Amino acid sequence: MEKITYRPGGDEFAYVFGGRPPVAHLRSGDVVEVFTEDCFGGLVRGPEDLPSRVCRMPFLNPVSGPFFVADAEPGDTLAVHILDITPARDWGVSSTFPHFGALTSTTHTATLQPPLPERVWVYGIDRQAGTVRFHATASDHTVDLPLDPMIGTIGVAPPGFEARSTLVPDTHGGNLDTPELRPGTTLYLGVNQPGALLALGDGHARQGEGEACGVGVEIATVTTFAVELIKGVSTAWPRLETDAAVMSIGCARPLEDAYRIAHHDLVGWTQELTGLDALDAYQLVSQAGRAPIGNVCDPNYTVLAAVDKALLPRLGEVYGDAHRRLRQLAATPDA
Amino acid sequence: MEKITYRPGGDEFAYVFGGRPPVAHLRSGDVVEVFTEDCFGGLVRGPEDLPSRVCRMPFLNPVSGPFFVADAEPGDTLAVHILDITPARDWGVSSTFPHFGALTSTTHTATLQPPLPERVWVYGIDRQAGTVRFHATASDHTVDLPLDPMIGTIGVAPPGFEARSTLVPDTHGGNLDTPELRPGTTLYLGVNQPGALLALGDGHARQGEGEACGVGVEIATVTTFAVELIKGVSTAWPRLETDAAVMSIGCARPLEDAYRIAHHDLVGWTQELTGLDALDAYQLVSQAGRAPIGNVCDPNYTVLAAVDKALLPRLGEVYGDAHRRLRQLAATPDA
Amino acid sequence: MEKITYRPGGDEFAYVFGGRPPVAHLRSGDVVEVFTEDCFGGLVRGPEDLPSRVCRMPFLNPVSGPFFVADAEPGDTLAVHILDITPARDWGVSSTFPHFGALTSTTHTATLQPPLPERVWVYGIDRQAGTVRFHATASDHTVDLPLDPMIGTIGVAPPGFEARSTLVPDTHGGNLDTPELRPGTTLYLGVNQPGALLALGDGHARQGEGEACGVGVEIATVTTFAVELIKGVSTAWPRLETDAAVMSIGCARPLEDAYRIAHHDLVGWTQELTGLDALDAYQLVSQAGRAPIGNVCDPNYTVLAAVDKALLPRLGEVYGDAHRRLRQLAATPDA
Amino acid sequence: MEKITYRPGGDEFAYVFGGRPPVAHLRSGDVVEVFTEDCFGGLVRGPEDLPSRVCRMPFLNPVSGPFFVADAEPGDTLAVHILDITPARDWGVSSTFPHFGALTSTTHTATLQPPLPERVWVYGIDRQAGTVRFHATASDHTVDLPLDPMIGTIGVAPPGFEARSTLVPDTHGGNLDTPELRPGTTLYLGVNQPGALLALGDGHARQGEGEACGVGVEIATVTTFAVELIKGVSTAWPRLETDAAVMSIGCARPLEDAYRIAHHDLVGWTQELTGLDALDAYQLVSQAGRAPIGNVCDPNYTVLAAVDKALLPRLGEVYGDAHRRLRQLAATPDA
Repeated sequence: MEKITYRPGGDEFAYVFGGRPPVAHLRSGDVVEVFTEDCFGGLVRGPEDLPSRVCRMPFLNPVSGPFFVADAEPGDTLAVHILDITPARDWGVSSTFPHFGALTSTTHTATLQPPLPERVWVYGIDRQAGTVRFHATASDHTVDLPLDPMIGTIGVAPPGFEARSTLVPDTHGGNLDTPELRPGTTLYLGVNQPGALLALGDGHARQGEGEACGVGVEIATVTTFAVELIKGVSTAWPRLETDAAVMSIGCARPLEDAYRIAHHDLVGWTQELTGLDALDAYQLVSQAGRAPIGNVCDPNYTVLAAVDKALLPRLGEVYGDAHRRLRQLAATPDA
Repeated sequence: MEKITYRPGGDEFAYVFGGRPPVAHLRSGDVVEVFTEDCFGGLVRGPEDLPSRVCRMPFLNPVSGPFFVADAEPGDTLAVHILDITPARDWGVSSTFPHFGALTSTTHTATLQPPLPERVWVYGIDRQAGTVRFHATASDHTVDLPLDPMIGTIGVAPPGFEARSTLVPDTHGGNLDTPELRPGTTLYLGVNQPGALLALGDGHARQGEGEACGVGVEIATVTTFAVELIKGVSTAWPRLETDAAVMSIGCARPLEDAYRIAHHDLVGWTQELTGLDALDAYQLVSQAGRAPIGNVCDPNYTVLAAVDKALLPRLGEVYGDAHRRLRQLAATPDA
Repeated sequence: MEKITYRPGGDEFAYVFGGRPPVAHLRSGDVVEVFTEDCFGGLVRGPEDLPSRVCRMPFLNPVSGPFFVADAEPGDTLAVHILDITPARDWGVSSTFPHFGALTSTTHTATLQPPLPERVWVYGIDRQAGTVRFHATASDHTVDLPLDPMIGTIGVAPPGFEARSTLVPDTHGGNLDTPELRPGTTLYLGVNQPGALLALGDGHARQGEGEACGVGVEIATVTTFAVELIKGVSTAWPRLETDAAVMSIGCARPLEDAYRIAHHDLVGWTQELTGLDALDAYQLVSQAGRAPIGNVCDPNYTVLAAVDKALLPRLGEVYGDAHRRLRQLAATPDA
Repeated sequence: MEKITYRPGGDEFAYVFGGRPPVAHLRSGDVVEVFTEDCFGGLVRGPEDLPSRVCRMPFLNPVSGPFFVADAEPGDTLAVHILDITPARDWGVSSTFPHFGALTSTTHTATLQPPLPERVWVYGIDRQAGTVRFHATASDHTVDLPLDPMIGTIGVAPPGFEARSTLVPDTHGGNLDTPELRPGTTLYLGVNQPGALLALGDGHARQGEGEACGVGVEIATVTTFAVELIKGVSTAWPRLETDAAVMSIGCARPLEDAYRIAHHDLVGWTQELTGLDALDAYQLVSQAGRAPIGNVCDPNYTVLAAVDKALLPRLGEVYGDAHRRLRQLAATPDA
């Protein structure tokens, strides 16, 4: 196990998954500490910095990477365990963005209405207190929300010859935008290209389920993760594992298709893990499952299907026990 | 305050909201104990009782009621607080149903594929232990799930001259199918017809979010609720309040419209409750909100938008403090 | 065969399908001439008559009827042939309506944006020339569009104990809003209640596919139709027949479900009519079919699946040749 | 004007738009004759050649190109006029494909049902008679359908750093799958990368609206097209022009968003072409528009918004009259 540190230079950020040369090489078991910039490239710092004015397409949602994982080949699975997400600054930022978000018409849910006003919110982050402070812009209300850092965008190179914008979540991961991607979680991604080509960014100090306004509390981070390569095991859609639960992620429009993908995957996974037949697994997930919504604003929406391990009878080993092994790194002082 | 007990005779169940004479009259503040039959009319009791064979349309999802609430008029809001849901039997039942559910094509998401096999699951309910026991049908797996009783269907007469099937959730309530409708929760419904005409049924010993297979752990119940009439306050979509949170419910297809309705309503409600302006309320809900999915199988899907009261700055009185008052009835011995 | 004339009094219009006593009795083979009011109840007559101001919910989209058809019972099919649709006045009217239509956010595709401006367009109808004249409101552009009268809303009582708003299209017909419902077309509707209880209204001088702004060129009409009862033949979704084509209608959200319903139905119908097996019928419809969109604004959207009879090999009799028989009435002087 | 002929070698086909070097250079005004292979790479030739067996991902839907158009830069529009589409063989082929198509559950509308049977249909093409012969597979029915050749997939490199599978339709064109892309039609595409990088393929001898089974009557073609570069004019979504009509294309899920995009674009285009204000243009398109569905099976669905030029008052020049100029090449013997 090696600990690698990577801090991208200003022109080293990537805006696509796929079609980019690696910035560093990793081996299964390595721990990586990486700096990630916020979704605005750090350019939105105050109420005057309207995103549509200071950001330029396609230079939105920069990711750090890609990292080439030795021996990773199509048909394998890459396990990525998030050890830590530390906000890199003592503030975060959110905004509305013209014709983007769940409670506005958009470029795709296109209407003749003008956009909502564009506005910026700056949040104070108090790491000691574990809070994120909301300040209203049109009045003097404030409230402290729990700090709950997450990685919004993480993925590998997509299949075929594609290169996908970092704004898009899909089978390769990408802009998943789920609060479940927090420290302590292991993400499983199917490998599509040699080396997997993992990249990540778009930290949030927290976000609500669905990310209604289209933007979380956006932060730069120093994120520490560990990787393990699971040879010869394929994974169709992104999956998560925590100490308590297993979860499948579906990415699609309309939102019910994201729900269907995630639950279809979780039913199949439940079958594998327990030995239940398909309809019994369907029944059990129907009664025991949770379905947290990730985002309802990105090019694909995300829904998770989750079930507590304690509710899965005769639960077998999950991905050869990768999560447990990676989880222990968190307890290792040098990791 | 009066305590009313109502146990419908076999031909007294209703299969629509609207267009039915009341079975009893209530006053604001009354507590009602009502027997509700399960969604199959109690006809599915074992593996041989396939619902498509023993049930006959439209005699599905019977509700008990409607109850006429004195003085309730269009433009008012009816608060219904659920004090208790006791399973009426020591078993519950679930099933697949041909071309119904989230992981099958349906009459509306119509495909040329044959239906999934129809199968029945019988669950044992242990009220002492607070568990619901899942038994696999194709193997001998079992597992105990937490007992978490809820009312699946509750509503008032719809607006206009409509009468709506009890299978449908919409602005009038109906087949909302959300696990949040458990004891301790207050439901707010806009009144559309004189007397409101409240009815309820379709208890579940528990269900997963989305009710993937289309059927929860269906039970008959003895349910105790209290009503309070809030005069001159209208409510567009069903809302919930617990000690900890306020929630709006959206009912629609596709699923993102249910999300939009619920969040649009919660943003407006947040404005009213806190004095925040619209965009500030949108921002706060975007970061602080939860979005539990109710059902992804009924004629309309349901999504909730929820926010903890503790995260709402300068929170005012919610519906004139109706929840707090009704909540206290739970502590009253005779209630 | 009898010719019945019906002109509803001001308080005789219906605003629901179902739950209403019949206004007249018909026999299979009867021809009926009926006055239908426009969707605004005739209250919008000029630019000042903004619909949201002059109309009052639920008194929108009045229909004339219902007509009780002798011997019609659940499980039968009612064939309704449209012989003629004559605009009752020399003008028609259209409008935008707040938060209603395809290119605006709505009560269900809910956003925080204010509604588009409400505006009224008055069209001149020249029956001799067969034109409908569009006048721009913000400039002096005009253009003549072809007059192509249609019935927007026609249906029978729904199944179960339901009563449905005349704004809704579904299995019982209702607010189908397709330009294919013009003279020369036969509509087939499954009978759900004794007497079928047919009603109709909501004439359009013409409309575009999808009815983008939510409102056609709305007219009062004198409509002449003939009915034939087809005993013992059930019909799941509304179907149309013209001299050239057969068509199935799907009503649902999202729009792809309306497409799926219509095509699923047409594939089954094609099998019955030709003797093709299911996959061959699927293949033929896939290559030979048309899919005109009806509406993308009502509570359910409508899509049609159509195929020319000339492209159906070994085409058998359609509904016992009802269309051909009814069609001949058009040539009968007294009809 | 030059006439270029291009016939790709076996390994020269592209499977993405973007990220590929050009195969030839064109100038505005050039005419190109290109061989295109069918969507199966020519590997499906009879009932035994099941696509899922003989085709290998991602080698589906090959396109010929990309062609670099001199001087084309981001912000310009490329006009591509289709002069001729000649089937390269005297047969075409269609099929079902596991979990792909509109009347089956899919990888995204995921259900637990097994796929429909995979089957191949071989069509005979009679160019003289102008017919495509359907042969049933499970019986001896046959029928001749009109030959109506079209290009299913045509596009330019996408914006940003993306490369998109040829199976996907989006703003850059791609797998649009609309029967309107036939000889006589001009396609307008916004240029995103220097040289535009145009590529095309996926000919259909014909297809129904929506391409219900997911596959048209697939053919190799010799296609002749001409290009004209329109400098300094940007185009957001693909547009079509024929002698009779202008059309906008929307690509999205759910299907109503494709409808909204297309109609939003057509309303704006109508404003530009006529001088009408936004609401007047909305109104006119609402009454005069057609909305042919392209596909309801690809990763994005496609819907067109069309209006006849004859119904647009004071119609100005469309894209500087490019269509008229390109159209005349069809009459030029050497073209």
